[in-house]
Amino acid sequence: MDSFLCGEWKKGKGEASTLFNPSTEEALAEASTAGLDLGAAVRFAREKGGPALRAMTFAQRAELLKRLAKGVADLREELIGIGIANAGNTRGDAKFDIDGASATLLYYADLGAKLGEQRVLADGEALPIGRSARLYGQHVLVPREGVAVHINAFNFPAWGMAEKLAVALLAGMPAITKPATATAMMTHRIVQKWVEDKVLPEGALQLLAGGAGDLLSHLRGQDVVAFTGSGSTAAQLRRSENLARYNVHLNVEADSLNAAVLGPDVQDGSETMNLFLAEVAKEITQKAGQKCTAVRRIYVARERVDAVRDALVERLREVKVGNPADEKTTMGPLATAAQLRDVREGIGRLASGAEVATGGAGAVDQKGYFVAPTLLVLREVPAGHPVNEIEVFGPVATMLAYGGAEDLVGQVAAGGGGLVSAVYSDDKEFVQRSVMGIAAHHGRVCIGGEKVAGQTVPPGTVMPQLLHGGPGRAGGGEELGGARGMALYQQRTALQGPRAMIEQLVGAPAAPK
Amino acid sequence: MDSFLCGEWKKGKGEASTLFNPSTEEALAEASTAGLDLGAAVRFAREKGGPALRAMTFAQRAELLKRLAKGVADLREELIGIGIANAGNTRGDAKFDIDGASATLLYYADLGAKLGEQRVLADGEALPIGRSARLYGQHVLVPREGVAVHINAFNFPAWGMAEKLAVALLAGMPAITKPATATAMMTHRIVQKWVEDKVLPEGALQLLAGGAGDLLSHLRGQDVVAFTGSGSTAAQLRRSENLARYNVHLNVEADSLNAAVLGPDVQDGSETMNLFLAEVAKEITQKAGQKCTAVRRIYVARERVDAVRDALVERLREVKVGNPADEKTTMGPLATAAQLRDVREGIGRLASGAEVATGGAGAVDQKGYFVAPTLLVLREVPAGHPVNEIEVFGPVATMLAYGGAEDLVGQVAAGGGGLVSAVYSDDKEFVQRSVMGIAAHHGRVCIGGEKVAGQTVPPGTVMPQLLHGGPGRAGGGEELGGARGMALYQQRTALQGPRAMIEQLVGAPAAPK
Repeated sequence: MDSFLCGEWKKGKGEASTLFNPSTEEALAEASTAGLDLGAAVRFAREKGGPALRAMTFAQRAELLKRLAKGVADLREELIGIGIANAGNTRGDAKFDIDGASATLLYYADLGAKLGEQRVLADGEALPIGRSARLYGQHVLVPREGVAVHINAFNFPAWGMAEKLAVALLAGMPAITKPATATAMMTHRIVQKWVEDKVLPEGALQLLAGGAGDLLSHLRGQDVVAFTGSGSTAAQLRRSENLARYNVHLNVEADSLNAAVLGPDVQDGSETMNLFLAEVAKEITQKAGQKCTAVRRIYVARERVDAVRDALVERLREVKVGNPADEKTTMGPLATAAQLRDVREGIGRLASGAEVATGGAGAVDQKGYFVAPTLLVLREVPAGHPVNEIEVFGPVATMLAYGGAEDLVGQVAAGGGGLVSAVYSDDKEFVQRSVMGIAAHHGRVCIGGEKVAGQTVPPGTVMPQLLHGGPGRAGGGEELGGARGMALYQQRTALQGPRAMIEQLVGAPAAPK
Repeated sequence: MDSFLCGEWKKGKGEASTLFNPSTEEALAEASTAGLDLGAAVRFAREKGGPALRAMTFAQRAELLKRLAKGVADLREELIGIGIANAGNTRGDAKFDIDGASATLLYYADLGAKLGEQRVLADGEALPIGRSARLYGQHVLVPREGVAVHINAFNFPAWGMAEKLAVALLAGMPAITKPATATAMMTHRIVQKWVEDKVLPEGALQLLAGGAGDLLSHLRGQDVVAFTGSGSTAAQLRRSENLARYNVHLNVEADSLNAAVLGPDVQDGSETMNLFLAEVAKEITQKAGQKCTAVRRIYVARERVDAVRDALVERLREVKVGNPADEKTTMGPLATAAQLRDVREGIGRLASGAEVATGGAGAVDQKGYFVAPTLLVLREVPAGHPVNEIEVFGPVATMLAYGGAEDLVGQVAAGGGGLVSAVYSDDKEFVQRSVMGIAAHHGRVCIGGEKVAGQTVPPGTVMPQLLHGGPGRAGGGEELGGARGMALYQQRTALQGPRAMIEQLVGAPAAPK
């Protein structure tokens, strides 16, 4: 697999990583970035891609995004095949990734069309300052003049890439996208198609298919890194010498121990109960639990734990684990051998002192990186138990018991900051106390109830108009959220001076949210 | 000097630092924080101060800020004396610091009064999501549930502290404020007064008068650090193990090589020229140039350099350097012996290959940390010259020559990111090209021209309604800017669910800018 750098497809010269089919352990491709000149790629983005994008209006950049979305849609069937082969996706998983990519590109194309024929966004209203009516202040948002480096996780090789790219390009920044090597075939194929179709200006997008090499050492204060991956890698990034020295803007999406809470008011057999069971089962098994937004902790009122456990186990036992090339399969393998090892080890750690209600570390034993949907039950959290510490990145969740809303809030917050949690309840007071109690610890909180049963978007689905990110363990980042996501790629600057001059410089309506 | 921690005044037990009068080198006080239990202070803020502030509405927090401002105003004459004695301030410098503190507290009190009887801010409008009209998304801003650690620079012991504190308290976060030890007497006296007046709820404000000890090691993902100081200390902070590991929110204001640009259209003797000369001379000499927003680089069209240099030298030679206890003094000493050493060394480095138009490293030689207003002229920047690298934190600026607007933008941008630069011109095209060319490299850009001559706020004056911060070398932070500044102390959370539930949770107008 080659990389697309400085306008050309290039092969690394060193030892290559092998990409596998995680269902069969068959080797599919090799990738190496050794010896590639990444300093030249950074300069190419800054010198070619940036000026070209900044010369375009939002409407023009929106047109690019539309064409990128069309490129993905045109390849849809081929990409589904790649998702099945290289990522262990079921057909549904692959569509989730691929259609998520198209939908996000189209959402930002729509936003760009609304922003129209401008290049500079006004941020808020003009403010009179000082004693003079002639003296005004106006905040504006302008594109940063560097390159955006996108380091993506293995779980969403299409959506994860498109999500970051749509926002950066619309904001006017060129990108170097680096997929996780293990599942990079999807990203590679999409970028190849875009290059064939000549959608983007020169330097607006480069692909690094393999290790990041010395890429980060070339970055400076106008550059951006958007990283999705593990908390430990994120901490290394934060501490890397030149990101810290030059204050390179860094956005992190990392680990998250997302919670699903069943309200004490929810009756067995009710619409809200069915919604809870359906969404929790989906969040555990979709993409074999390899979503940063998947549910990891399930909170149930103490006296209901047995009944809810049984109902959930029933749903999880319907899941058919296997090679997704077989259409009867409803959950595929984990993406890599390393993930399998980590998940098995993680289940072992979580299971200590817990009841294994279904699944378990060794429940599936066959060729391929398979693990069974696993539900653990932990009625009390023993001291030192890692349920609030480790994210086991597979089809694994732990059910926990809570007393009242206050106990619940404390337990959820003990996760140290998450991307998204969900509260299922129709009791307004419980919703108020629990949702507002956990809000500061999350980037998104969902409420499920009878009024929206059958119409909800499950909590694990990231939507372009709502924030994606969370505090603490989740990395402290902010992506998407409509125009909010562009902030990472924009400098906010206060202009201060004569009113007529300021109006001439801006000449633009306020930034939409 | 004692610290106010966990509701009590406490003295450190170890070796103390001595605070001096920088005009006379007389010792004034001692400070030590050795042996103080800073983990307890962090817990006290989280457990007492945070809940008390979060229970209050914005209007109630605004009342606190008003009373804090009144406390500062009540002490004004005494504080001016402290500024003269401990910080080497002229009376004007001290008033700038003290009145800046009151004005910022009052600005945020006004903002809080407008936000009124709410505790949660809506961020943008509610958005329909998915296919159902019943399913809504709404972003909200809620206070982070930790402590805000404020690490301030020595140059603004009143304003710097108040600026950070006003925003944190209004947002609903308790603070531990740590002034720079050398000039901490001002901060100490103000906090003492506030404590005497019993303005704040328990735990809302603690004072650490001296070294930071192990304070940062106690911070986690709901905590915030707002730092103002040198770029090298900032880089250490960013790399500190537990800030990186727990994604503690960190805002940095660091070095800045602020530029002042004279447009090629500006004629000698014009109002715009006089504005330029007056503001540049003020920015060089106010607080002896010890402002992060002071002008460091002055850009003049190549053919005008000699004439502009002469006019500026004339103004700088009117400055009377001395002990500000003498009323005839118009510029005091640097704050510390270390600053004097650094500034003299910095002048030496900048002067290499440059013309010393006035002042110089050794121009004043008397007891006290004095240095003369110094203007260097550098018609061409020799390879390796540090004019775009080092911030000499004293009354020192370098005049440089530019060709056209494009050359100018490149030279200003070579400073690597700044807090504020100013363009003086009445030529709309030059303003457009230069201001928008440098905007991405700054947090604020000022325009001076004849329409606002005599009414401007000089670029070095930080205003609460406009952003304070800048990319790259300047730290990449964002403070103030009205409600924008509260973002550091708030978690932005997307709520997603049934419309009626969302409206019940928010029940608040959108956040103002």
